[in-house]
Amino acid sequence: MAGNSFGNLFRLTTFGESHGVAIGGVLDGCPSGVEIDLDAVQKEMDRRKPGQSAIVTQRKEPDTVEFLSGIFEGRTTGTPIGFVIRNTNQKSRDYSHIKDSYRPSHADYVYDQKYGFRDYRGGGRSSARETASRVVAGAIAKQFLSQIKINAFVSQVGKMKMDVPYQKLDLSMIESNPVRCPHPETAAKMEDYIKKIRKEGDTIGGIITCVARQVPIGLGEPVFDKLHAELGKAMLSINAVKGFEYGSGFKGIQMKGSEHNDQFNSDGSTKTNFSGGVQGGISNGMDIYFNVAFKPVATIIQPYETIDKDGNKVTTKGKGRHDPCVVPRAVPIVEAMTALVLADYTLLNRTIRLDYRPKS
Amino acid sequence: MAGNSFGNLFRLTTFGESHGVAIGGVLDGCPSGVEIDLDAVQKEMDRRKPGQSAIVTQRKEPDTVEFLSGIFEGRTTGTPIGFVIRNTNQKSRDYSHIKDSYRPSHADYVYDQKYGFRDYRGGGRSSARETASRVVAGAIAKQFLSQIKINAFVSQVGKMKMDVPYQKLDLSMIESNPVRCPHPETAAKMEDYIKKIRKEGDTIGGIITCVARQVPIGLGEPVFDKLHAELGKAMLSINAVKGFEYGSGFKGIQMKGSEHNDQFNSDGSTKTNFSGGVQGGISNGMDIYFNVAFKPVATIIQPYETIDKDGNKVTTKGKGRHDPCVVPRAVPIVEAMTALVLADYTLLNRTIRLDYRPKS
Amino acid sequence: MAGNSFGNLFRLTTFGESHGVAIGGVLDGCPSGVEIDLDAVQKEMDRRKPGQSAIVTQRKEPDTVEFLSGIFEGRTTGTPIGFVIRNTNQKSRDYSHIKDSYRPSHADYVYDQKYGFRDYRGGGRSSARETASRVVAGAIAKQFLSQIKINAFVSQVGKMKMDVPYQKLDLSMIESNPVRCPHPETAAKMEDYIKKIRKEGDTIGGIITCVARQVPIGLGEPVFDKLHAELGKAMLSINAVKGFEYGSGFKGIQMKGSEHNDQFNSDGSTKTNFSGGVQGGISNGMDIYFNVAFKPVATIIQPYETIDKDGNKVTTKGKGRHDPCVVPRAVPIVEAMTALVLADYTLLNRTIRLDYRPKS
Amino acid sequence: MAGNSFGNLFRLTTFGESHGVAIGGVLDGCPSGVEIDLDAVQKEMDRRKPGQSAIVTQRKEPDTVEFLSGIFEGRTTGTPIGFVIRNTNQKSRDYSHIKDSYRPSHADYVYDQKYGFRDYRGGGRSSARETASRVVAGAIAKQFLSQIKINAFVSQVGKMKMDVPYQKLDLSMIESNPVRCPHPETAAKMEDYIKKIRKEGDTIGGIITCVARQVPIGLGEPVFDKLHAELGKAMLSINAVKGFEYGSGFKGIQMKGSEHNDQFNSDGSTKTNFSGGVQGGISNGMDIYFNVAFKPVATIIQPYETIDKDGNKVTTKGKGRHDPCVVPRAVPIVEAMTALVLADYTLLNRTIRLDYRPKS
Repeated sequence: MAGNSFGNLFRLTTFGESHGVAIGGVLDGCPSGVEIDLDAVQKEMDRRKPGQSAIVTQRKEPDTVEFLSGIFEGRTTGTPIGFVIRNTNQKSRDYSHIKDSYRPSHADYVYDQKYGFRDYRGGGRSSARETASRVVAGAIAKQFLSQIKINAFVSQVGKMKMDVPYQKLDLSMIESNPVRCPHPETAAKMEDYIKKIRKEGDTIGGIITCVARQVPIGLGEPVFDKLHAELGKAMLSINAVKGFEYGSGFKGIQMKGSEHNDQFNSDGSTKTNFSGGVQGGISNGMDIYFNVAFKPVATIIQPYETIDKDGNKVTTKGKGRHDPCVVPRAVPIVEAMTALVLADYTLLNRTIRLDYRPKS
Repeated sequence: MAGNSFGNLFRLTTFGESHGVAIGGVLDGCPSGVEIDLDAVQKEMDRRKPGQSAIVTQRKEPDTVEFLSGIFEGRTTGTPIGFVIRNTNQKSRDYSHIKDSYRPSHADYVYDQKYGFRDYRGGGRSSARETASRVVAGAIAKQFLSQIKINAFVSQVGKMKMDVPYQKLDLSMIESNPVRCPHPETAAKMEDYIKKIRKEGDTIGGIITCVARQVPIGLGEPVFDKLHAELGKAMLSINAVKGFEYGSGFKGIQMKGSEHNDQFNSDGSTKTNFSGGVQGGISNGMDIYFNVAFKPVATIIQPYETIDKDGNKVTTKGKGRHDPCVVPRAVPIVEAMTALVLADYTLLNRTIRLDYRPKS
Repeated sequence: MAGNSFGNLFRLTTFGESHGVAIGGVLDGCPSGVEIDLDAVQKEMDRRKPGQSAIVTQRKEPDTVEFLSGIFEGRTTGTPIGFVIRNTNQKSRDYSHIKDSYRPSHADYVYDQKYGFRDYRGGGRSSARETASRVVAGAIAKQFLSQIKINAFVSQVGKMKMDVPYQKLDLSMIESNPVRCPHPETAAKMEDYIKKIRKEGDTIGGIITCVARQVPIGLGEPVFDKLHAELGKAMLSINAVKGFEYGSGFKGIQMKGSEHNDQFNSDGSTKTNFSGGVQGGISNGMDIYFNVAFKPVATIIQPYETIDKDGNKVTTKGKGRHDPCVVPRAVPIVEAMTALVLADYTLLNRTIRLDYRPKS
Repeated sequence: MAGNSFGNLFRLTTFGESHGVAIGGVLDGCPSGVEIDLDAVQKEMDRRKPGQSAIVTQRKEPDTVEFLSGIFEGRTTGTPIGFVIRNTNQKSRDYSHIKDSYRPSHADYVYDQKYGFRDYRGGGRSSARETASRVVAGAIAKQFLSQIKINAFVSQVGKMKMDVPYQKLDLSMIESNPVRCPHPETAAKMEDYIKKIRKEGDTIGGIITCVARQVPIGLGEPVFDKLHAELGKAMLSINAVKGFEYGSGFKGIQMKGSEHNDQFNSDGSTKTNFSGGVQGGISNGMDIYFNVAFKPVATIIQPYETIDKDGNKVTTKGKGRHDPCVVPRAVPIVEAMTALVLADYTLLNRTIRLDYRPKS
């Protein structure tokens, strides 16, 4: 209810502030018997961690996960998986300037208004550091969903856009560059652009595209919990996200029904896929694909005017080591949230038919 | 879990198929003591009902709500509000052609795959008829939230766009035309265009913009249940929706942080509102605004090829009386879902401080 | 949240006041493909309905269920099952004497305190009439759970006790007498005693014992949602229930571990069953059995003193047609709630192993 | 869903096995601004910890809580409170004898059946060690509920019963003896009896009575989530509990309605309190009191026959350091669960009236 849990049957609860002792979570409902490759989990963490390249924040945090329960002799036991990630590089001093003033387009002001006071060290609970716990859980979800392939990548930075349909991209190239754009030429331009933005002490937004392939038919619940509705919520819950579209998305509104309808092949697959792999809220076996829009990060290393707690004007300046563009590090987060949604619906789907039998 | 409920504290559960006996719902958690204007509820129903103008489906259904419980002597009692809407115009014959074949871009195929069989009369549970129950509950939510003003309107049909920021529109004009576009000149063009599309037996998509004003500061939960994430899910759960963006949305990604940050006034309000009234998932007292993209309706009155249950090709043609463009009738649904989200978070917000006290 | 729903995956939401238009409910999450025998549903309703014998309330209500959705061509479709039961015999006049005063040991006073006012016609939402909706849903749950046998019966009325272990009873005799006690001699005495109590205008309590046989191994979740904990909650949620014990229950506390431990047979069954079919919150395949204690009904047909809304003393007298002893009519309710719990855990149990496969 | 969470608005999720790295939990939904006395939390832990007296298990575990989040400058922030308790005294060797065989009346067998395999070190997740996390959360709930007084105590051990109504007891004596029975003479006898049982290598059951005073009127939800139903579930979720009764309980069934009804005083309080402080599922301001029955602990230090995984008979003997009687250490657990229920309903109660205003 208080909004720190995600999923129903495959359910993650997270805790922790950016500058507290530790962050972590509890993953409840992961079925027993899933073999867990801990290196694969850490590898996902490394894709999200600060300091991994020249175009992300230069904070150094190893982000090492300690599992406390729920895994025994290499397999999940069916009991809750508790884990913690210690905060090792808090540098609370960096944030002393924001104790009594509100950074524009951050959550400082609304937290004070909502809760009466706030943990003013860094973003506290509103910091994107929380997403590290999501990546842990998402890495386990991926191992549970071994047959589904989930790949996210950067498709736009500012106005710089990769105009290639995902079907024509080599998704194995995503990790070949620090931007995580599978089109090397565009990636190089994006990288240069992000470096330029950082020099200005400014930030820029971008788009992440995500594709899930080999998704079984039937995931998603009619009416309120449509598969794309839950994916949309999952994405919009990631820090800095401003928009979500799937399949034909916002462009699809300009099409006529006679153009937009996906005609069937005789095996139930469709000739086109404007539907984005989801019909009536339920997966139809085609690729699921969607776009996620990220705003420019609010922390800029430039002087700006703002107000303090009493409404007085103050002039201040962003400090610390922040991301000039959030999308490269957000790629594993988008994948993690996608995996959590698909894992939850996979379990739920086992309950909807009298004679349900999983495919062998 | 099975996806027929929405909200936690202010919670709607709906039931019913388009061609069954009745649809309806249970609204649980509406506080006691809310004065209910039943005429206002029916008025919202009339905005959604078929046959209301020349540009919507010509089916005739009175959509009369019968309340069964939870309201006594004109006020809510705090007990669940049960209601039914009888289906009076099912015409099951209209749908006999789809019993054994799958309409493209409808949910027929995935329902059969997921559940093993389906109620083939009309869309069954996947029909937009279900949204009538949402409008009932939303109308009650609006009365509970009396101080918040929620207005949705059509801002785009196909490529035909109203390029006026909502602040410059006279929202009292929304109901002045059948399109529900508050800009009369654009509305007239849209109306003509929709009529032309209908003559072709085709359909077209559109965008609905929604604005919520006078929203108290503090609604929304950090992390997974951010206010805009739940609004996004609510909108994406409406039939035919393909995308959601709030505040600066997809355009915001092209901006720099130095442009996009909303500077504070001394009273805590902001000079700009790229944030769309939400900071870190929590309302900040500024207007909340967002766009919802609707695809072209899948039912077209043209011949098309598709497959039957055995994968054989069949040629068929849409029949019945369908909407050439769904957005005019979807306006009250968008408002209803917005009201349900805000009502739920309003109640939740009472629980988050030791010393919580509602404003008098 | 507001307490009108029960179950997670197999979930019932009820609505309705005793003297409103109708009561009813929505059963969400029942799997598709369950063949529904509507006569069997009505038969369960008839076991609960008023006026069925000389020892229950003489109100006449046919309690006819109308199903509105979710069942098509004799089978469940996987969509929510909505149903209503019209109130046909409200006689609001019977209750005019309680509009402004509080009946002792009823919920009148606390409803006024909690909600600010109440529907004073009869018990409103606190009336046991609500349990009719539970019996509908329980009857569907029983059909889903066809292999599990659930039998409840009256084992004590006042001090009159049937001292025979359930294994030695012929449970097919339960319906052979109006008390629903499978031991005919005791049943006859109980019947006479209840008639005597009714003549006095008084009421008396009792115990219902419930046995569930052929329950698969593995139902129930560790820790908070132990099978017996949820059964306990289900029973305690029935009007007038004051206690719950399972297996050895309150008597078991006097035993030593060496006596109480259930020794295994080589097939995993146990020689004794003090555990009541549940070990560590999980069913072990042995019979589940438990006792439910019902207090004497609060409505008595005798003069009594009480207070009005202003705290003034008033003398009044119970009117209307009430039950001298609630247990005979509560038997189908106990069975219904048991079935709802077992159905919910049956579905949940499909989600807990990677390689889950239902028994054929 | 998987049963490791308790509560809705004030919600505890626990994790951890008895012999893993650590146990712990996340308490989500605790309102901001609650001053937390960490010493008081640890003091509750010390009441539950092993080795505290001669009549409990002689294992030594300090059970030190480390808080990881959600508390800042001595107050709760409204964000989730994460905490861990390291396991320092696992001695896995003690349990090697149970790896391949099933202890009678333990959860070993059903865990293997349900999950396919189990963490065989100690009870794993089914160990009562999990309840340490409940005591942490309960200690915070108590501080949130500062005006409510919750006292549990041992009222029966085996057949040894304290026949004094709680109103005549001096509850400040509870902690004066290791049994936690507030009647010193009975306590001394119970202590001797437990020592005798321990010498025999056997175990014995008991009853804990709990009283909650100064509970506001209005807590509890009608129908399924009655206050006593949730209390019942909370108690039955504690390891070894076999029964629950509140107010007049199982004895009340022998009373007539004319004796059992609680007559009102003019201030709304009642002359008697057979209702146990709850009417129709809602607190009425009178003392809430209930009894919880605990079976004899299953681990006995005597030779016994049982089966191994293949159904072969094996003779084995309990080892390790176990409790001869669980009730003295369960007293703080009963109080903790009571506090969690009352905290949850206190928050929920803020949402049920349009004009809700907390008492100042």
